[in-house]
Amino acid sequence: MGNKTKEKILRTLDKGEESDKLSKGFDTFIMALILLNVAAVIIETVESIHVRYGDFFDYFEVFSVVVFSIEYLVRLWACTAIEKYKHPVWGRLKYIVSVEAIIDLLAIVPFYLPFLLNHADGRIIRILRLLRLFRLFKLGRYSMAFGLVTNVIKKRKEELVVTLTLLVILLIFASTLMYYIENEPEREGFQSIPETMWWGVATLTTVGYGDVYPITPLGKLLGAIIAVLGVGLFALPAGIIAAGFESELSGRKKKKKDKDE
Amino acid sequence: MGNKTKEKILRTLDKGEESDKLSKGFDTFIMALILLNVAAVIIETVESIHVRYGDFFDYFEVFSVVVFSIEYLVRLWACTAIEKYKHPVWGRLKYIVSVEAIIDLLAIVPFYLPFLLNHADGRIIRILRLLRLFRLFKLGRYSMAFGLVTNVIKKRKEELVVTLTLLVILLIFASTLMYYIENEPEREGFQSIPETMWWGVATLTTVGYGDVYPITPLGKLLGAIIAVLGVGLFALPAGIIAAGFESELSGRKKKKKDKDE
Amino acid sequence: MGNKTKEKILRTLDKGEESDKLSKGFDTFIMALILLNVAAVIIETVESIHVRYGDFFDYFEVFSVVVFSIEYLVRLWACTAIEKYKHPVWGRLKYIVSVEAIIDLLAIVPFYLPFLLNHADGRIIRILRLLRLFRLFKLGRYSMAFGLVTNVIKKRKEELVVTLTLLVILLIFASTLMYYIENEPEREGFQSIPETMWWGVATLTTVGYGDVYPITPLGKLLGAIIAVLGVGLFALPAGIIAAGFESELSGRKKKKKDKDE
Amino acid sequence: MGNKTKEKILRTLDKGEESDKLSKGFDTFIMALILLNVAAVIIETVESIHVRYGDFFDYFEVFSVVVFSIEYLVRLWACTAIEKYKHPVWGRLKYIVSVEAIIDLLAIVPFYLPFLLNHADGRIIRILRLLRLFRLFKLGRYSMAFGLVTNVIKKRKEELVVTLTLLVILLIFASTLMYYIENEPEREGFQSIPETMWWGVATLTTVGYGDVYPITPLGKLLGAIIAVLGVGLFALPAGIIAAGFESELSGRKKKKKDKDE
Repeated sequence: MGNKTKEKILRTLDKGEESDKLSKGFDTFIMALILLNVAAVIIETVESIHVRYGDFFDYFEVFSVVVFSIEYLVRLWACTAIEKYKHPVWGRLKYIVSVEAIIDLLAIVPFYLPFLLNHADGRIIRILRLLRLFRLFKLGRYSMAFGLVTNVIKKRKEELVVTLTLLVILLIFASTLMYYIENEPEREGFQSIPETMWWGVATLTTVGYGDVYPITPLGKLLGAIIAVLGVGLFALPAGIIAAGFESELSGRKKKKKDKDE
Repeated sequence: MGNKTKEKILRTLDKGEESDKLSKGFDTFIMALILLNVAAVIIETVESIHVRYGDFFDYFEVFSVVVFSIEYLVRLWACTAIEKYKHPVWGRLKYIVSVEAIIDLLAIVPFYLPFLLNHADGRIIRILRLLRLFRLFKLGRYSMAFGLVTNVIKKRKEELVVTLTLLVILLIFASTLMYYIENEPEREGFQSIPETMWWGVATLTTVGYGDVYPITPLGKLLGAIIAVLGVGLFALPAGIIAAGFESELSGRKKKKKDKDE
Repeated sequence: MGNKTKEKILRTLDKGEESDKLSKGFDTFIMALILLNVAAVIIETVESIHVRYGDFFDYFEVFSVVVFSIEYLVRLWACTAIEKYKHPVWGRLKYIVSVEAIIDLLAIVPFYLPFLLNHADGRIIRILRLLRLFRLFKLGRYSMAFGLVTNVIKKRKEELVVTLTLLVILLIFASTLMYYIENEPEREGFQSIPETMWWGVATLTTVGYGDVYPITPLGKLLGAIIAVLGVGLFALPAGIIAAGFESELSGRKKKKKDKDE
Repeated sequence: MGNKTKEKILRTLDKGEESDKLSKGFDTFIMALILLNVAAVIIETVESIHVRYGDFFDYFEVFSVVVFSIEYLVRLWACTAIEKYKHPVWGRLKYIVSVEAIIDLLAIVPFYLPFLLNHADGRIIRILRLLRLFRLFKLGRYSMAFGLVTNVIKKRKEELVVTLTLLVILLIFASTLMYYIENEPEREGFQSIPETMWWGVATLTTVGYGDVYPITPLGKLLGAIIAVLGVGLFALPAGIIAAGFESELSGRKKKKKDKDE
């Protein structure tokens, strides 16, 4: 088959234009399959459901892997139609190590791996099940939400590094001080600085589970000061990401508008 | 009666100009009645008050439904004075299915329904009581707060969809990871991924009730990282809504100013 | 004594220019006295301190009231030097009902009242003690922080009213729904809608004490949705106040700069 | 040795240009040593690790102090090459009291002090161990994160003072009111106003550990109002710091860009 056929197949597999009914239909099918897969991973962990519908989940898993495998192979076969993957061997190898292809591979490998391993113990199988969730990233082809995050993080990298540095420094100082004040034998949660950091994170992010909190007057005084000061600093990354997000989105909107005109 | 009478009646029922004393007075009466109704729904659930003043609440309910029913019928009769509901039959049917009329109907239907049903069990009656709260939406005619929210959500739809998608993805990954780490027999709160999501929401929104939290060192480490990273992302929708809200309100202020000049 | 003396006395009592040493010194004395008074109100509630230093706190209270009383009387006597309080009788009456004078009066009245009442029971005396805290507002004469808040609230009144309306509506709906779902006999915290509102506020403000939280799966699902949606809305007033605050402060800075040039 | 040698040594010790391989290598070595020191302070508080690797931590401590001491002495010897520390005696004394040199001294003094003291009890030794964490500030020479915070706080000093004043006032009023409402014999957490402030901080920062919360209906009502109102105000410093941070960072970016052109 010629490159024209391959190009057409790739266009059908990728996100389609509104006018291309076949491509649109295929997109919808794959997206629905991905979402159902994610839902299946989540729901089948409920014991009562797993007991009752376990077989159904297994069938669905086989069906999904078959579809995703065919998709992977077709893409691998057709990729030579793209200029940069032109060479029948090196081009394909180059495609295999592209981010896109790795995500596609990660979506199917967890299914095949246990067959290849002689002794796959329960722990590895559990981790492989977890990997099935990476199918979600296949959505990256269809949804701009994924690319957006990457872009925002790239553009605000400097700010984020500085604030995360500050957060870590604040966390270290807060936790160290609190450890020296609250550390008493038999006093759970403040037995070491790493342990005290759990309190630190819960306080500075204002989550405040309430499993550990200072009980001495001095510890409470320090905890109050840390909470007031720290809360301001821990709100910083949120503000930075929000600002980057807004400017990124408004930039895209403008671009789209310019294009439409 | 002619269209002029109908128009005058509608003007009286709707939000009136400052100069129209009668319309203003009627507005105040209906708004007070709505607020008292909402207060009644809330207060009568207090056992001690219900026991003592139950009859009073029943009388007030009958009175309110009578007023709202008359309002509904008068509006239905008079709506033909409006251009788009002109036809005596089709116009009225068209009016009945308008958002405004449905809200008005929902405000009275829960009262009549039990008389129409032969066997209305306790559960249905409880749900019908709940529906009484929809009377609050009748305020939409008088307060701009309701329209504002709708507008903001419409204009920032794209941003909100993207961020909510991100939130859900983050929630799924955080909960799945935590489930794999913290899931132990007899360990409440982490028995399945959906169950673990309750922890996820409580952590990422920083509510942190403290009914479930990780106890293993690895779980705490992951929980800390999720809290720090996630808190930034979960603050995004707040920022987007706030920005949309501000621009919407300042836009209205400007419009009003331009009008006044 | 003439108006010149009165004017000079008032200038000394009020916030002084840098050059006026006497006025500056008096300001510092009054501000220190106010802050010490507030500290005294707070600290003397600690049982062990009250037992040991009770007498000292009593002496300090008498001393403070004497100073504040003299200040009040001197101001009342001298106020006729100000144009709008010119009349010896009506001017002074007008001064007495000014916000400034009422704050000054509230600072001393709680001390004298028990002498005027025949039967002052413990409860009234406790409330009178509480009123001593209003001395803090006397600081309003010297610190711009107080005026700032009033200004911001005034300028952003419309936005704040709209958002508070939305918050209350959201709170009512969230609490009503949760009450219908979680209400079971013997289930504390969800016995009535007003009681459930305590859960609602704790969740929507993300305080999350953890004294009440949903336990049914449906309640948790609803609680999670409310937390995600509501948190965005409850962050709104904070954003509005922050924006108003910023513009107010930058406005003042600019004004000051223009003045200096 | 001449000033040229001294200058070269100082250049090597300080943050180096990309081209200066020796200086770059030395920077990396010192930064790694500082970070490892901080890690050691944190990790060695874990009992099980301390028991097993205690000797290793001691050797590492000795090694670090030797390096930092040599660095300190070399800097002290070479500082005369800098114009303002030119004088061999007064210049060096001036250098010793500079912020930079004090931080360097604080990094080594906690090691030597116990040898100088005759009776160093456990408490002092613990505090000296805590001081080892100040080595983190030595990073200030290499990372701009430290300077940034200082700058932001300086530029927004006025706003921060005003908001912190407001926060303290709100905290005092909230805690005083709550104390008068919730104070009952045997009711822990509300026995005095300072004690109640712990509840106040936990609520207003939305940490909400859940160790103390109002239980009377009036207390809950007040607590709800305080939470709603206060949360907005406590978010202010975060907003101010975030805004200052953003403008500071974008200012630096612009400066860098201008320089590059």
